[in-house]
Amino acid sequence: MPLPPDPVAAVGGIAAFGRRLRRGDMTAESATRAYLERIALLDGKLQAYEHVFTEEALAAARSVDALLAAGTDLGPLMGVAVGVKDIIAVAGAPTHAGSVIDVTDRTGEEGSFVQRLRRAGCIIVGKTRTVEFALGALGTNAVRGTPIMPWDAVIARAPGGSSSGSAVAMAAGLCAFAIGTDTGGSVRGPAAFCGTFGLKTTVGLWPLDGIFPLSPTLDSIGPLTRTAADAAVVFAALTDRPPPAALSLRGLRLGKPIHPFYDDMDADVARNMAAALTALEEAGATIVEVDVPEADEANRLFGVMVAAELIAVLGRERFLAERHRMDPGVAERAAIGLDLKATDWIAARWRHDALRRIAGERMAGFDGWIAPTRQMVAPVLAGGLDADAQRRLASDIPRNTRVINMFGQCAAAIPLHGLGAALPTSLQAICPGGADRHLLALSLAIEASIGEAPAPGLEGFL
Amino acid sequence: MPLPPDPVAAVGGIAAFGRRLRRGDMTAESATRAYLERIALLDGKLQAYEHVFTEEALAAARSVDALLAAGTDLGPLMGVAVGVKDIIAVAGAPTHAGSVIDVTDRTGEEGSFVQRLRRAGCIIVGKTRTVEFALGALGTNAVRGTPIMPWDAVIARAPGGSSSGSAVAMAAGLCAFAIGTDTGGSVRGPAAFCGTFGLKTTVGLWPLDGIFPLSPTLDSIGPLTRTAADAAVVFAALTDRPPPAALSLRGLRLGKPIHPFYDDMDADVARNMAAALTALEEAGATIVEVDVPEADEANRLFGVMVAAELIAVLGRERFLAERHRMDPGVAERAAIGLDLKATDWIAARWRHDALRRIAGERMAGFDGWIAPTRQMVAPVLAGGLDADAQRRLASDIPRNTRVINMFGQCAAAIPLHGLGAALPTSLQAICPGGADRHLLALSLAIEASIGEAPAPGLEGFL
Repeated sequence: MPLPPDPVAAVGGIAAFGRRLRRGDMTAESATRAYLERIALLDGKLQAYEHVFTEEALAAARSVDALLAAGTDLGPLMGVAVGVKDIIAVAGAPTHAGSVIDVTDRTGEEGSFVQRLRRAGCIIVGKTRTVEFALGALGTNAVRGTPIMPWDAVIARAPGGSSSGSAVAMAAGLCAFAIGTDTGGSVRGPAAFCGTFGLKTTVGLWPLDGIFPLSPTLDSIGPLTRTAADAAVVFAALTDRPPPAALSLRGLRLGKPIHPFYDDMDADVARNMAAALTALEEAGATIVEVDVPEADEANRLFGVMVAAELIAVLGRERFLAERHRMDPGVAERAAIGLDLKATDWIAARWRHDALRRIAGERMAGFDGWIAPTRQMVAPVLAGGLDADAQRRLASDIPRNTRVINMFGQCAAAIPLHGLGAALPTSLQAICPGGADRHLLALSLAIEASIGEAPAPGLEGFL
Repeated sequence: MPLPPDPVAAVGGIAAFGRRLRRGDMTAESATRAYLERIALLDGKLQAYEHVFTEEALAAARSVDALLAAGTDLGPLMGVAVGVKDIIAVAGAPTHAGSVIDVTDRTGEEGSFVQRLRRAGCIIVGKTRTVEFALGALGTNAVRGTPIMPWDAVIARAPGGSSSGSAVAMAAGLCAFAIGTDTGGSVRGPAAFCGTFGLKTTVGLWPLDGIFPLSPTLDSIGPLTRTAADAAVVFAALTDRPPPAALSLRGLRLGKPIHPFYDDMDADVARNMAAALTALEEAGATIVEVDVPEADEANRLFGVMVAAELIAVLGRERFLAERHRMDPGVAERAAIGLDLKATDWIAARWRHDALRRIAGERMAGFDGWIAPTRQMVAPVLAGGLDADAQRRLASDIPRNTRVINMFGQCAAAIPLHGLGAALPTSLQAICPGGADRHLLALSLAIEASIGEAPAPGLEGFL
């Protein structure tokens, strides 16, 4: 069986797909079938999916086609294939949350957000792999399997985490868009490593029922898409608002937070960021360096706050009894929360409130900040790193995204493909909490200025 | 010097005082002078005030008189003397928060609420004594002194806490109204023991800057007044809304939460509550028993949550270094928070969210709940209780109010003087969080039905 083209990417995106669907040039069933065939051909090696809803997806697609034929239009996501991160409950399949431990008591039944996907006419094609309990930026999962970053078929590279499978599925065209969650970079990080667009929405934008809670304080839902344009369609459809239009870059004032965001970048990241900043300035934006001295503290607080919340979610007894069955890296990161004192957690929580206020003040006068999403390209998985170096890597990777979660902001990872760079890099656009729609309008402008991302060649995975 | 009458109570309350002030029958200066004279004569024994602003208050009163004469009316609290609890910063005097330890770094400068009092034309006559760090229901303070409940000049009785001085000052007519704070009953409890009206507002109604934080999760500001009618005037003036009018009791459906509220009542409390319920039914209200099985859990969670927050506020190091200088009872209650684990605090916090939701559901269909504010009258201070019995007493006293704080509700303590009862008892009216105005309208109706409270004879304290 030859690899069929990604039916949505092939026509230019979700909006174009929707036009063809409504003209009768395509059907939801044929598009869904194409995604299922691509999954069948590629996912044995890519391992993006934990579960594929083959028959359910085809039945849903046929019913959507019938509904549209009968004159009922569910809107811009009708018939659009979506992969859903496996910490999110979807009726008809178990929710593993990346674990072999049963935590369905904390996840519950399919919740409001997935039901919103269904009511919008989305076709859920599968559950995507995730780092266990969504706690990890490298994207590895020693207990349920690690998806493979699809830009390098020779040496296996880390997909980024925790929404690892969502990013791989999106980058490899195994869905039209994917749903991830972002607590410290879990949407933006894998989007950066895999070269897709990723949106970290403001906490509270969408309800979190039916989703395994890593940190109720910081968890957010976010789509991974091929382009900012697709993300704008998804966002608009799932918030019942008209899609945002691109800002004009002319006259925009963009902040460039130097430390730690621009420190110790890989050569490809540094070169691509420099080229992107030049392109934005040529398009009329003013870029101003901004000091964010609270960033290191925000990064430090993140680790203890989230670890304690995860242990509280699991329950101490369950964690202690089951930690030997957990991914060792996840267990080690979570265990930080075991002995933290309540008074230290409370003090961290209050400081978190203060950091959000301060960040809001630092953002004043800017239309957004721009920084690398990740300071590195996707690292090789089977590197010769010892446990200590791996630990440092795991803690260092998410430094540019965790800060933004702690600041209560929203942010997008925008693919950044430089001339001659083989692996994806990513620009992070950052806006104040609540300004999600403005962030998308800014992302559209940046995407128009630096160009849409290419797709990976996938022959090596067939 | 003979004891001058309480100038506001003598004319019938704050609204009547305001009318006379505007007619020129009285001046703010003369009223303030009367309160200062009463303080000079009574407070040596009653110990309600930590600090008295004699000259500043007279100067403020004169300026208010001049302002009114010049045609500027600041509203219904203009020229009204107020005592402010000494965990609240007021410019011109130190904020002790009931302690000999310096915690002004956590209190800060005079904040929004006190400035609102000033802008409303209030005359701040003094800072009232408080339980150290506002953590205690009996009202004692071993390090800065304990105010004396003004209904018993023979045997010293506990004023209730933590807003002990505010309640004593109000009950003895040493101010026209007083400001307290309520985290687990610190306004309602002393109001109940001293026989004043006390309003525990919904968390967040008024900003808490410039106030020592015992528990940022549960702290609220509340006035203590002679009557519900005065509280309605104060509330309206400080929320910039018209004063509420009394509800009609006819047709109201009031819940009577049996356990633990009506358990183990003192005979006077039981008799007065029974008489009040009969009066309310005769006035046309329907009283329906309601089960609140979560109350005991709410009481349990309160102790650990607040203790950990207080230690976090003080900082572990300061608490450990200074606890020997603290009131022993307060130090013991706070120390519970020292070793609490972050995961347990987080779990308690989430359960607190759930309890608020559940309480909201249990309140549905009721116009309010009614229960005793305290199950006992003010206990004798120098009782022959051993440390263990004192500990049980301190933990048992606030059981009927702490639940309400944990449920996120608002509530009022309404004085309840039965025939022949020598000491005040109190009815607690309880409404959903945010329904403060409705609560006052209900309180006005209850007060109209059961009658205004008498004032204590104070001759024994002269």
